Amino acid sequence: MLPGMKLSTAITRLLDIDHPILLAPMGGVAGGALAREVSAGGGLGLIGAGYADPAFGYGSDVWIRGEFDKSGEGAVGIGFITWALDERPGALDAALECKPRAVMLSFGDIAPYAAKIREAGATLICQVQTLKDAREAAAKGAQIIVAQGTEAGGHGAERATLPLVPAVADAVAPIPVAAAGGISDGRGLAAALMLGAEAVLIGTRFFATREALGHPNQKALIERTGGDNTLRTKAFDTARGIAWPEPYTGRAIRNAFSDAWHGRDGELREQNPSMRERFFEALRGGDTEMGVTFAGEGLDLIADRPGAGALVARIVGEAIDALTAAGRRLVPELPEG
Amino acid sequence: MLPGMKLSTAITRLLDIDHPILLAPMGGVAGGALAREVSAGGGLGLIGAGYADPAFGYGSDVWIRGEFDKSGEGAVGIGFITWALDERPGALDAALECKPRAVMLSFGDIAPYAAKIREAGATLICQVQTLKDAREAAAKGAQIIVAQGTEAGGHGAERATLPLVPAVADAVAPIPVAAAGGISDGRGLAAALMLGAEAVLIGTRFFATREALGHPNQKALIERTGGDNTLRTKAFDTARGIAWPEPYTGRAIRNAFSDAWHGRDGELREQNPSMRERFFEALRGGDTEMGVTFAGEGLDLIADRPGAGALVARIVGEAIDALTAAGRRLVPELPEG
Repeated sequence: MLPGMKLSTAITRLLDIDHPILLAPMGGVAGGALAREVSAGGGLGLIGAGYADPAFGYGSDVWIRGEFDKSGEGAVGIGFITWALDERPGALDAALECKPRAVMLSFGDIAPYAAKIREAGATLICQVQTLKDAREAAAKGAQIIVAQGTEAGGHGAERATLPLVPAVADAVAPIPVAAAGGISDGRGLAAALMLGAEAVLIGTRFFATREALGHPNQKALIERTGGDNTLRTKAFDTARGIAWPEPYTGRAIRNAFSDAWHGRDGELREQNPSMRERFFEALRGGDTEMGVTFAGEGLDLIADRPGAGALVARIVGEAIDALTAAGRRLVPELPEG
Repeated sequence: MLPGMKLSTAITRLLDIDHPILLAPMGGVAGGALAREVSAGGGLGLIGAGYADPAFGYGSDVWIRGEFDKSGEGAVGIGFITWALDERPGALDAALECKPRAVMLSFGDIAPYAAKIREAGATLICQVQTLKDAREAAAKGAQIIVAQGTEAGGHGAERATLPLVPAVADAVAPIPVAAAGGISDGRGLAAALMLGAEAVLIGTRFFATREALGHPNQKALIERTGGDNTLRTKAFDTARGIAWPEPYTGRAIRNAFSDAWHGRDGELREQNPSMRERFFEALRGGDTEMGVTFAGEGLDLIADRPGAGALVARIVGEAIDALTAAGRRLVPELPEG
């Protein structure tokens, strides 16, 4: 890394941050401590409020206030699953009282919330999975649009990051775009900038950090598993009794549970509620063959468990190295003959 | 584009070409005229021999010789579907007699062919869809490995380009890697270089060129359709009576046929052989609602039908612009306070 250099983009300037790296607000993984550390490292941490549902052990109003207390006022943002917020809209009010730097909404219609978020002084980040939804988010007031590819861990849809990002950037300009899905190192950040993104949103790589929530067995699994070993499935949602709308599925590491139940959602539903209880017990106990470990295809590039602040610096350094090396590939064209 | 600059990589040096752009050997699309034009533009054209089966109207020994005659000796390469070559190995001998610059094998075990290809003086390019298969291709003698993402048009598998390319590059070094899937412009080429690729392999974008084979209705459909409107399916293969092995499916533009038959392969098989006849008749007649138009998610970035040689120059120019613009994002880090 060139000493004393950094990457300046439309998103670093809009959010007033040092580095174009946003923490994906992973439910059950991105708490106040992880978000604080990413922001302290120069990126933007986003707390994952998920379903905003007390039943999950994270995401309730009380939990949200507690995590903001850990993160430092004004330093971090928060993310919600939009369709879940429709059922518990009070969670957004609880979050806005904590003065988030940004609010990210994914998987649903942002119209009921856009004005309230912007009027509270938070930057409205909207994550989309198709070009059609990107255009809709732009029309409804998104200030940053995250184009999320199918290789992302957790919930998402079918389009892939590399072709989606430039298409979204063209369609929503001048609204800046962040790339999400499959990005684990500085090569991915540098590639995203080439595609027209002004930042990246990174999830799985930050799961394998010291500050992430989640069971140590899950972190160890992420560190030793490769990207060939994930799948998009509804099985883990069906086991938990969560009715995700079409077209969303969750990308997770294949395990004994998904080998047995992927594609058998009808039968799986019949096993509830006893399956649901056993499933959550497995999650709590760190049984990664029955519980879910959401993770993306960027797994191949993850093999350690650093602190999240140091990880931000590492990724930026790698990106600057990649950009600098590419410049050396430009050579003068010699005349023929 | 900076006047008088070009991109030099391990693959341009290995193949002795000016630009790191390879033509995907699309069956029924990449004939000798298109391959010649891509090579004349400074990339490497690859003729698509597909199933090497006279029944398809392309790929027979006679067709292969005729297409090489159109392309100029030693200027282009050829690509085969490996499992189809297992059934008709004589097609490779016919191709090698034409002195191809390179032979690309996809979708199967390269072991029976690797030595023969290299001994004939052709560069052995092997396309893979997983990290596991990349390691196997490296062990069996591939000289260039194409890491193909799920967003690619035509046949492929599940992993996405952006995270697959750096993982493959790390695993097979020092064998150089080309990125395939979702790349339609210079932003995609620049991104691929950041990910550790030494070239790109481009398909769909070259379908919409003047020299491509294929019906004008298919080219017009590609030019007006967006990337949200493709799917991976077996339906078109089942209709044609082709038994592709697992895990491969074909990405194509959604149409009335795929809306009706996707996921109903058993029923579709029962309709043959009459379905097969109607299907090929639709293809010949340019009926794009019944016939298949294989295309990738890079569709959003395709809206015209240039000559292929000019297209190579355009993509390189855009990539150099993207690389140069990224350099301007590097700014000095100011001391705190």
